[in-house]
Amino acid sequence: MNYKVVFKQLGVLVFLVGACMSTSLIWAFLDRKEEDFGQIASAFLLSIFICIGIGLILNFRRTQTKKMYRKEAIAVVSIGWFLCGILGALPYIFSGVLAPLYDGWFSICSAAVFESISGFTTTGASIFPEPESLPRAILFWRSLTHWLGGMGIIVLFVAILGEAGSGAKHMVISEVPGLPDEAPRPRIRSAAMLLWNIYVAISVAEVIALNLQGMSIFESLCHTFGTMATGGFSTLNGSIGQYNNLGYEITIIVFMLLAGTSFNLYAILLGGGWRRVLSNREFQIYLLIVLCAVILLTTDIILDGPEEYTAGKALQDSSFQAVSIMTTTGYGTADFDRWPDFSRWLLVLLMFVGGCAGSTGGGLKVIRVVLFFKILSLEIASVFRPRAVKTLKIGDRPVDKSVRQNVTAYLGLVLVIFFLSTLILFILHNDYCMQKEDRINIETAFSSVAATLNNIGPGLAMVGPTENYAFFSAPAKLFFSLLMILGRLEVMVILCMFMPSFWKKE
Amino acid sequence: MNYKVVFKQLGVLVFLVGACMSTSLIWAFLDRKEEDFGQIASAFLLSIFICIGIGLILNFRRTQTKKMYRKEAIAVVSIGWFLCGILGALPYIFSGVLAPLYDGWFSICSAAVFESISGFTTTGASIFPEPESLPRAILFWRSLTHWLGGMGIIVLFVAILGEAGSGAKHMVISEVPGLPDEAPRPRIRSAAMLLWNIYVAISVAEVIALNLQGMSIFESLCHTFGTMATGGFSTLNGSIGQYNNLGYEITIIVFMLLAGTSFNLYAILLGGGWRRVLSNREFQIYLLIVLCAVILLTTDIILDGPEEYTAGKALQDSSFQAVSIMTTTGYGTADFDRWPDFSRWLLVLLMFVGGCAGSTGGGLKVIRVVLFFKILSLEIASVFRPRAVKTLKIGDRPVDKSVRQNVTAYLGLVLVIFFLSTLILFILHNDYCMQKEDRINIETAFSSVAATLNNIGPGLAMVGPTENYAFFSAPAKLFFSLLMILGRLEVMVILCMFMPSFWKKE
Ligand SMILES: [K+]
Ligand SMILES: [K+]
Repeated sequence: MNYKVVFKQLGVLVFLVGACMSTSLIWAFLDRKEEDFGQIASAFLLSIFICIGIGLILNFRRTQTKKMYRKEAIAVVSIGWFLCGILGALPYIFSGVLAPLYDGWFSICSAAVFESISGFTTTGASIFPEPESLPRAILFWRSLTHWLGGMGIIVLFVAILGEAGSGAKHMVISEVPGLPDEAPRPRIRSAAMLLWNIYVAISVAEVIALNLQGMSIFESLCHTFGTMATGGFSTLNGSIGQYNNLGYEITIIVFMLLAGTSFNLYAILLGGGWRRVLSNREFQIYLLIVLCAVILLTTDIILDGPEEYTAGKALQDSSFQAVSIMTTTGYGTADFDRWPDFSRWLLVLLMFVGGCAGSTGGGLKVIRVVLFFKILSLEIASVFRPRAVKTLKIGDRPVDKSVRQNVTAYLGLVLVIFFLSTLILFILHNDYCMQKEDRINIETAFSSVAATLNNIGPGLAMVGPTENYAFFSAPAKLFFSLLMILGRLEVMVILCMFMPSFWKKE
Repeated sequence: MNYKVVFKQLGVLVFLVGACMSTSLIWAFLDRKEEDFGQIASAFLLSIFICIGIGLILNFRRTQTKKMYRKEAIAVVSIGWFLCGILGALPYIFSGVLAPLYDGWFSICSAAVFESISGFTTTGASIFPEPESLPRAILFWRSLTHWLGGMGIIVLFVAILGEAGSGAKHMVISEVPGLPDEAPRPRIRSAAMLLWNIYVAISVAEVIALNLQGMSIFESLCHTFGTMATGGFSTLNGSIGQYNNLGYEITIIVFMLLAGTSFNLYAILLGGGWRRVLSNREFQIYLLIVLCAVILLTTDIILDGPEEYTAGKALQDSSFQAVSIMTTTGYGTADFDRWPDFSRWLLVLLMFVGGCAGSTGGGLKVIRVVLFFKILSLEIASVFRPRAVKTLKIGDRPVDKSVRQNVTAYLGLVLVIFFLSTLILFILHNDYCMQKEDRINIETAFSSVAATLNNIGPGLAMVGPTENYAFFSAPAKLFFSLLMILGRLEVMVILCMFMPSFWKKE
């Protein structure tokens, strides 16, 4: 491990966070007539100065060598995410918006870190019971963290600076799982640029679409950040449902689906390969799963759901929630915690499927689920035909053996983390919480773990779509922060940090 | 697929079931002064005649060829288990013990099949709310199905008849997972004999141990069958806890631990290899997990549990329940559903771990869990060291590559079945159940699936240790029967039957 290079790169990353933070000053300035203007503006200025200061310290030593290998790239990505999470929490702390909600600095800091990491990892689980009461500068920063984390802040950093050397490729791959591995080194910067350009272009389209229908520029921006990053933070207490506007809902459904699609497909589309896009197996199955989920949810709600539902309303809410949960966005138009248990459990399953590889969505990713079922059918056939040659294919392309091992191990790993984290959560929350009524049951525990590990946001019961994560104990909030980063970076990259051999100097 | 050979072997298996059933006549005869003697005796005689009749039909055609290959062996094992399950249900149906509990023949038959398959698969989930009120002949048959299914009725059949040809090995391996694969064909009969001799010897020891402490011969036999098979059917409404006898509890803890140990180890022990037994990695980790679970459960109950618990009582109940759940026996001395949620979730995790490979216990098996964590740490290391050679070892012995793929696929498969079955259960139960209060919630659903798929018996909430499975709808009972057989035969063997290529004539 070459620590100097790692520090240097982290320093540049911290500058970038500071630069992004300064955009919130615009909203603070527009609201300069509010009485809290002074405190908000100074909170952001102080946060930006701290970022610059830390950036300078990390860049202090001159390093000649620019050589970054796989290990250094992994270290930058994983440490970088924790660092962004902590620095992104500063505006919440300094602005004083948490002071009325929490007692003591440990509670305030853990809540702020939770909110910041929930933003960057595009989870969208919030500790603010009433976002509407927050100043616009804070709301903007909250949604901006989604947008930066969605396509990957380190991908942005490679795109802008393009100086990370041979490690850049590993960094980009670690941050946007599912990107083709074959891109040669000199092209990684242009690949990163292309990804961000597509991301910006679709985002602009959504802002315009929402604004033309009457949503304010500020809210259009915030909701676009939340949609395109599959994040889920809203500016309203009641999320998208509060608008009660079918046009907004359809627009957001479309853009959530776009955000959950592999960004490679857009690059192919730009090259005119629309046939290849339509015949992409993962894309087809992704749409098929959404369709089946909508049909099952609608039927179940009509047959067994709350009485106020008409068939049309059931279809409308099912479509929105199926897409919102499957793409791991987490926006809400209905309290699905009041739906029948079949629907609630189906949504838990959708949480694990997630979006396509190479999209901004979380979860296991559609392609892994497809591969897993293909591997299983080969394994079952090998019970009675042990000597048959087994080749795994997606469409017409054979799949590499190492991918095969990796897919089953990853799926098992995520489920094991899910089971064990639920157990740990009981220790971290139930033993620390003051009020008896704040104690969580098994349903709350496993669904909150599923919702954070898969970067969804809302879960069931006490973390249902009309609830929030404010009541969790401070240690539980920090544990959720770890789970969110584990989910965002697909576990393996973060688990490297727990292997002693990773840190050895070579 | 050579159907003739399959039918012939199934015919012999059916004769064996009839022969075993006749032992229950002894208890019917001993209770000849009871008023229901005539009905019970004729129920068993009728069931035995049906077994003989079906056996004769299946054996009717003369078959010259004795050649059995892998496919035929798998077909005999999987069809054989369903057949045993159905024939084993006949005494419950004919004796009329279900008539006061259920309406209509479909309800009665599905309940009887559930109870019979729960017996053979050593699950021990019951549809009798009050076993104490049942005649002894029925109780004995119920417990005997455990004992026959524990070591494997097809293994017994190979041991006694030893005529199954080259397919015998595949049958034995399919039924007792974890047996060494290397045994050559002529020795498979003696291997099967040895397994059954060890099983009988330890069972005799337990009957004597319980009887010397004052338990009646009948109850000692039934509880021994339940212990050695890791089954869990009791003759009492309140399971082992109803005796309130520390001596019985300690005896049963010891024999549950013995039943959850690989029977290969006893064979090695007979050969004088006690050093090899003590240094067996799976055995060490098995005991270690039990020890950790007891410590965690005891601590949690003392800190957070119901107020009536003293430290001593907490240790006593924790030890019994940890061993009972981990070995997948399911005997109860405490209502663990009233324990804190940490303990309840820990028990769900233990359900999945299960006993050692080659034991009568269910679950994933300790060795698979150990291998899975080893595979994961290799996979994580390969993220930052992709070219390093990875060899997987257990103790000093390297593990084959195919085993590696198989372990991760199996673990993923079981968890996927678990998630999907929970969803299916909502459709099969909630839409068919008449009373609103019989509808199940998510906790009941997933814990009943976990408890049947891993062959445990009791789960949480409405299937907790003081409850039973009587309230489930008939389709749900049949679905549970499928899950129990899937769990007992380790899934893959049964899933073969769902592959069209399995049934092709070659
Ligand atoms: K989200
Ligand atoms: K059992």
